[in-house]
Amino acid sequence: MKLGIIGLGLIGGSLGLALRSRDHYVLGVSRQEQTCTLARQKGIVHEASVDFSRLAQAEVIFICTPIEAILPTVQQLQPILSSETILTDVGSVKAPIVETVTPLWSNFIGGHPMTGTAQQGIAAAQSGLFSGTRYILTPTEETPSQAQTTVTEIVQSLDTEVMTCSPVTHDQAVALISHLPVFVSSTLIAACRQEQDAEVLNLAQTLASSGFRDTTRVGGGNPELGVMMAKYNKQAVQQALLTYRQQLDSLMSVIEEENWDQLEMMLGETQGARSRFL
Amino acid sequence: MKLGIIGLGLIGGSLGLALRSRDHYVLGVSRQEQTCTLARQKGIVHEASVDFSRLAQAEVIFICTPIEAILPTVQQLQPILSSETILTDVGSVKAPIVETVTPLWSNFIGGHPMTGTAQQGIAAAQSGLFSGTRYILTPTEETPSQAQTTVTEIVQSLDTEVMTCSPVTHDQAVALISHLPVFVSSTLIAACRQEQDAEVLNLAQTLASSGFRDTTRVGGGNPELGVMMAKYNKQAVQQALLTYRQQLDSLMSVIEEENWDQLEMMLGETQGARSRFL
Repeated sequence: MKLGIIGLGLIGGSLGLALRSRDHYVLGVSRQEQTCTLARQKGIVHEASVDFSRLAQAEVIFICTPIEAILPTVQQLQPILSSETILTDVGSVKAPIVETVTPLWSNFIGGHPMTGTAQQGIAAAQSGLFSGTRYILTPTEETPSQAQTTVTEIVQSLDTEVMTCSPVTHDQAVALISHLPVFVSSTLIAACRQEQDAEVLNLAQTLASSGFRDTTRVGGGNPELGVMMAKYNKQAVQQALLTYRQQLDSLMSVIEEENWDQLEMMLGETQGARSRFL
Repeated sequence: MKLGIIGLGLIGGSLGLALRSRDHYVLGVSRQEQTCTLARQKGIVHEASVDFSRLAQAEVIFICTPIEAILPTVQQLQPILSSETILTDVGSVKAPIVETVTPLWSNFIGGHPMTGTAQQGIAAAQSGLFSGTRYILTPTEETPSQAQTTVTEIVQSLDTEVMTCSPVTHDQAVALISHLPVFVSSTLIAACRQEQDAEVLNLAQTLASSGFRDTTRVGGGNPELGVMMAKYNKQAVQQALLTYRQQLDSLMSVIEEENWDQLEMMLGETQGARSRFL
């Protein structure tokens, strides 16, 4: 098939490499001429351009831009494409994207590949990034079945396990296991920073080791990513934070009351529950 | 020197191996005959017994029992030892131990080796457990300087870096970087467990990956250890939790107000602050 990719970063670039290895013809678009050159040199795409017009040939287009660029991208594509062209995206939140894109382009299905690396950008692209991972698709009642079937077949051919759910279910689940950990973890660093006794703070900084390192890892990540989570998944993130705060209050009460049996039971329950998530 | 070790678990057993390798004569005591046999077989100690009386010969005794057994152990030792015998412990909280032991045995200095493994018990003992790690000693105005000098020399000979601070400073620092992470992390699991929508919960359990795994690792640990932290370091843990909750409330307000610039600044500050702890 002739496939388009808009945004040639880690995900878009890796998708290009993977799709080429499955004998698709890949048309790439990036905002930057330099990225287009690199994409051609590295064999990520057959053609690359800063111009959207070549994408008129594509049967399916993967929008791999940052979330805030998805809607403007669809608006730019509208006058160029025929209505048969299928659009899909790879944004890590789904409801706000599906809700705003669908009225503009009905032949659309939202997607979220559950993969990544610590690195970003085209230089980090790798052909095996999708192999063995899960790929979420979020069809709605309005999604054309042909769009779902076609995108499913393409991403399955990259050795992914395709899962489907509603956009809202997706956003609530990632709020719990992906977005909430970032805010919980960041707040731990923020709390430690508040220490007013310089001797205690210095000692804490000296003694912090693997427990602190692991618990604060995601909270020490890219601030823009954290803002994106809160901004585009606000309702689900707020609900998760509210539930978290209630659980924290319960824990603090149990410690205040010195109810050690209850505390041991609570910690035993979370110890047992963790394995059901991993 | 003739040295005693009471409690032959991971720390006590490893201490025996390390001290023997420095040519000390090591007398071990365990509650369990089986552990004594194992300690002799594995060359952890020269002598091992369930009976405290042989420890009368020891010049310095390391109490390596669980925290709640430290005070009863000192009470058992009192009638046996001469006042010249130096006592020290390896408990992970210091103020409550130093405050209760010192009136019973003035020739005492509190200690906390900053080491460990995921395994527990004598089977996990290893001679290199202390090498290259920090060893905190918490002398007070009442601590005899000879006790401090002697214990410092012994633990330094195991390739540790000895640091000293007051018991209260120690407890406040570990509340921040060791105990608070456990409760923050455990509460994250507790919050995820609360999800009432079965589809969301199932999807969350399926999708949880490295971010969730790292952030919840210490919260999924031994419940007894968490209870010990809250019970014996209650004041400092409560203060840390209170500061944490204030920071969480600030974050939730900023998200509620959609003040994305402020959120990005906060996440940028925690990103920068993390490296000062690691």
